[in-house]
Amino acid sequence: MTYLDHAATTPMRPEAVEAFTAALADAGNASSLHAGGRRARRTVEEARESLAEVLGARPSDVIFTGGGTESDNLAVKGLYWSRRAADPRRRRLLVSAVEHPAVLDTASWLARHQGAVLELLPVDGTGLVAPEVLRAAVGDDPSSVAMISVMWANSEVGTIQPVAELARVAHGCGIPFHTDAVQAFGQVETSFAASGADALTISAHKIGGPVGVGALLVRRGLELEPIAHGGGQERDIRSGTLNTPGVAAFAAAARAARAELPAEQARLAALRDDLVRRVLTEVPGATLNGAPSGPGRLPGNAHLTFPGCEGDSLLMLLDAHGVECSTGSACSAGIARPSHVLLAMGADEAHARGSLRFSLGHGSAARDVDALVAVIGPVVERAARAGELAGLSSRG
Amino acid sequence: MTYLDHAATTPMRPEAVEAFTAALADAGNASSLHAGGRRARRTVEEARESLAEVLGARPSDVIFTGGGTESDNLAVKGLYWSRRAADPRRRRLLVSAVEHPAVLDTASWLARHQGAVLELLPVDGTGLVAPEVLRAAVGDDPSSVAMISVMWANSEVGTIQPVAELARVAHGCGIPFHTDAVQAFGQVETSFAASGADALTISAHKIGGPVGVGALLVRRGLELEPIAHGGGQERDIRSGTLNTPGVAAFAAAARAARAELPAEQARLAALRDDLVRRVLTEVPGATLNGAPSGPGRLPGNAHLTFPGCEGDSLLMLLDAHGVECSTGSACSAGIARPSHVLLAMGADEAHARGSLRFSLGHGSAARDVDALVAVIGPVVERAARAGELAGLSSRG
Repeated sequence: MTYLDHAATTPMRPEAVEAFTAALADAGNASSLHAGGRRARRTVEEARESLAEVLGARPSDVIFTGGGTESDNLAVKGLYWSRRAADPRRRRLLVSAVEHPAVLDTASWLARHQGAVLELLPVDGTGLVAPEVLRAAVGDDPSSVAMISVMWANSEVGTIQPVAELARVAHGCGIPFHTDAVQAFGQVETSFAASGADALTISAHKIGGPVGVGALLVRRGLELEPIAHGGGQERDIRSGTLNTPGVAAFAAAARAARAELPAEQARLAALRDDLVRRVLTEVPGATLNGAPSGPGRLPGNAHLTFPGCEGDSLLMLLDAHGVECSTGSACSAGIARPSHVLLAMGADEAHARGSLRFSLGHGSAARDVDALVAVIGPVVERAARAGELAGLSSRG
Repeated sequence: MTYLDHAATTPMRPEAVEAFTAALADAGNASSLHAGGRRARRTVEEARESLAEVLGARPSDVIFTGGGTESDNLAVKGLYWSRRAADPRRRRLLVSAVEHPAVLDTASWLARHQGAVLELLPVDGTGLVAPEVLRAAVGDDPSSVAMISVMWANSEVGTIQPVAELARVAHGCGIPFHTDAVQAFGQVETSFAASGADALTISAHKIGGPVGVGALLVRRGLELEPIAHGGGQERDIRSGTLNTPGVAAFAAAARAARAELPAEQARLAALRDDLVRRVLTEVPGATLNGAPSGPGRLPGNAHLTFPGCEGDSLLMLLDAHGVECSTGSACSAGIARPSHVLLAMGADEAHARGSLRFSLGHGSAARDVDALVAVIGPVVERAARAGELAGLSSRG
């Protein structure tokens, strides 16, 4: 099996499994006062310190959550509610047009149900939000903006945003800035302090930790309305029993990812460049979407369009040859829709629908690229024939 | 070590660890379309069917979440928002005074920030909500009630509510009924169908599954506004990557708990009765709180008051002797407050503060009771002396 879908989820690292198992053996609720509870608490706090160190943050910045989606919901809703409570004029949400649905759908829910005004920040042809675009979007009424959210790196096309510059623009206007770093964390250097972001989302299972664990980094002093009420855990920002084995495994995965980052970044980028070059040779009409190879793109991401094909057909045909990838815009309802990211980048619908994401991660090797290259030509040919027939029949 | 705090969290069952590990080996995002994703999806759907069977529910009723707190938040906020959107007069939340903070704090947040009106349902001296009390609380304006929430069994004193009768009252008035069954599930028979509840909360780590996994059962046709927006997983009610290993382990724990339920229920009740009898013999002034032993009380729960003592002192002294228990009202902020449950039951503050919860679960044995009984007498004596000194010094 050739797994080229690490951006969807990546296997747990051995270090993470080990930390998980060790913490399991020592059951205890970290909110309990007895010795078992205090041991669990120590495990949690060590994980917090460890993650903070990897991320260039203070331990007290780390709020553990149930995953990236929850962290994004907490950042967007939490900031909107608290900022608006302090000043009712703050109704605008400035969110990039290429955000993950966890940010986009949350902001759009706030607009539909909670009086927010959602404004999408346009991107260029590579998926980038230019700092001057953000500045212009804020306009001459910064006091009406509740918060700004721009992801660190795009989950579909891998474009890396100028987060530090965007955060500077936001701060120049006195507006808090959130970034979803789910895809960036573990693939490129992500320092909370250096980014200047006020809140930052990360997820464990994208870096070799367990599913169901994430965190929101929240800079000191930032007011945030909670979205999960109850026992008052995590500075009263996120209630719920702390997932002691989960956060221990998360921290172990983060340490492992960090230790190999410089070498792995170069290795994955080289592998990815090889993949892109060879696929473009096999399929001359194909094109690479997003930023060119280099510091502006996630090293593990290749996102290609195969004209005249349906992404889903390509995906299933590749799967039949043992190659697993994604269209990049997974839709859990099973209805194929063109990617909102590619549309925002200016692609037309047909282009957007004929796209595939290949994402590399720990464990990816040259044999994975070989396996893809061996089948991509015939697969594209077959999908294109199917596309022509569909086109004919729909016209007939 | 003597662990008498199973109600806070209980060790993972071997069956659950096995299911977790098996699912881990087979990584894949259940929303991915390729073979690995479809395998993960199958694991999730098998877990859903399995849990539904154990709970007397339909598989489609099961919405997986990140835990009991999230499920409670989803039920209370989700029902409030959707019911109020359909009819703006529906502002009242009828919630028992002895609910877990995940329900109480959520309802109180809705009252402070979202226009809800919170009304606490009073309980009797054993912690029970009588159906006629609920009927009276609804009053002559049922159309103004958004939802009703009464827990299946109390997390502190173990009192079991007449859930089916309460649900009947609610339905008689056309109001949806939610019950938090986190403590009941695995300790007593909990059938979703037989209960008549419209929504029911469960948590994995209280029955020997992993932390960070829970579910909300939602009866077909019930409208529920989501609280986590994003990818549209779980019938668009709960977005976020499905925790495949976690839900597989949850289902395995549920099956194991269910298989041993009748025998374990009798065994734990006998053990608990022995604990209560012997502690009351060692400490003649102590009293049992909540319902008497029998079908009205969780078999694993013993909740006792030791007059003249501080619960926290007792807890720490017992801990020093290797006996782990809880005051029942864990406060993550570290500030001891008298239990809202005991106060609602009519206890005075001193009585409420001098209480301990001993909770039994899988793995509990006669030696645990022996260990507690061997030290409880001297521990209470010492805590009472400390209490007297504190009383003297505060008077001096």
